[in-house]
Amino acid sequence: MSEAPRAETFVFLDLEATGLPSIDPEVAEISLFAVHRSALENPDRDEAGAPVLPRVLDKLTLCMRPERPFTAKASEITGLSSDSLARCRKASFDDAVVRTLQAFLSRQEGPICLVAHNGFDYDFPLLCTELRRLGAHLPPDTVCLDTLPALRSLDRAHSHGTRAQGCKGYSLGSLFRRYFQAEPSAAHSAEGDVHTLLMVFLHRAAELLGWADEQARSWARIEPMYVPPDGPSLEA
Amino acid sequence: MSEAPRAETFVFLDLEATGLPSIDPEVAEISLFAVHRSALENPDRDEAGAPVLPRVLDKLTLCMRPERPFTAKASEITGLSSDSLARCRKASFDDAVVRTLQAFLSRQEGPICLVAHNGFDYDFPLLCTELRRLGAHLPPDTVCLDTLPALRSLDRAHSHGTRAQGCKGYSLGSLFRRYFQAEPSAAHSAEGDVHTLLMVFLHRAAELLGWADEQARSWARIEPMYVPPDGPSLEA
Repeated sequence: MSEAPRAETFVFLDLEATGLPSIDPEVAEISLFAVHRSALENPDRDEAGAPVLPRVLDKLTLCMRPERPFTAKASEITGLSSDSLARCRKASFDDAVVRTLQAFLSRQEGPICLVAHNGFDYDFPLLCTELRRLGAHLPPDTVCLDTLPALRSLDRAHSHGTRAQGCKGYSLGSLFRRYFQAEPSAAHSAEGDVHTLLMVFLHRAAELLGWADEQARSWARIEPMYVPPDGPSLEA
Repeated sequence: MSEAPRAETFVFLDLEATGLPSIDPEVAEISLFAVHRSALENPDRDEAGAPVLPRVLDKLTLCMRPERPFTAKASEITGLSSDSLARCRKASFDDAVVRTLQAFLSRQEGPICLVAHNGFDYDFPLLCTELRRLGAHLPPDTVCLDTLPALRSLDRAHSHGTRAQGCKGYSLGSLFRRYFQAEPSAAHSAEGDVHTLLMVFLHRAAELLGWADEQARSWARIEPMYVPPDGPSLEA
């Protein structure tokens, strides 16, 4: 059962960071696409009937320079490095990022549902860590949805045990290829992955909106990925 | 001669609005791509040597609901309408837009140079009108560059009167087609046009950076397109 009133805006989110959870990663890039519920309930479609990106779409993408180094793998995958971010004079995940994020979200009709793929295990706890370090908050009625367990559960419910759903890949790329018979563009840029995520969501929009209404988790329940090394307090 | 110190960040900008200057238009969509000078001086390139979008790129796109109607033509061209913006519960160009814009710009190393195509005659005066209505300011060392007269002048200087430069089209689409032998994508979405503008800029980056250093105009000299119907004052 849902923990919050029905979300009116869905904010699709991806983070690129310095590495996997085991290294206490820092965010290097954040991208958000904000889409009103009405545009997900009745998606725009192309001539062939496939969903296309909503025309009314707010976007925010910010790069930031982590204080600790990238793993070689993370740098290779994301195309970002401490050097390239320093050359472009990017500041760290600081108060100005929080102000931009909060002002951007304040433009969206609430309640807001944050949506990320593998969000419960990666993006949400990592964002939570960065926000706590700065003593920053999201609107208190914010909820969140992870499309990875949501789509797995929806598929299991459909299959009634008759199909080997376990054999299907549920990476964002696999889902996109399965739904659109095409390669996703710009994988592992934050914006590229949010674009892919939104297209995947649009392909299953009715089911996922229903899922969100029933199963979205309160943002207040998200635990940080790790305790930030410094920062105001743990009560954020 | 330049009116300000050398810009360190170039913020490419496009506005979609309810119509042409004669109707006192209102902004319905704004998109900004912020690129550090270093990424323009040494653009990333594809295998064929053509410039590609910088990897380190901050983006902001916001839609807003004008108070007065779109002209039929503007609605047709932009794909936006009062109805679709109302359905997505977009607020007008309000304080939250200003806060988002200012926080976004505060993440960029200054001085900032705003870049728009036909900016002096459209985007800059219109943005100036909206900001004045709200009593809002940009950083005082902000400068601006209009790629339309800049590219015309650069081509005239190159041609030494030997080529009929007047015959060439200087619309954003014409420039993109001439430089890249391809159709620009998503014309007349604010983000699509900023993408096209940035690609055009990258094709002539060395010359346009030199032009900006010599000829960029102080933002303080931009006059509003029209006197906003209400708002704090004219002294903003």
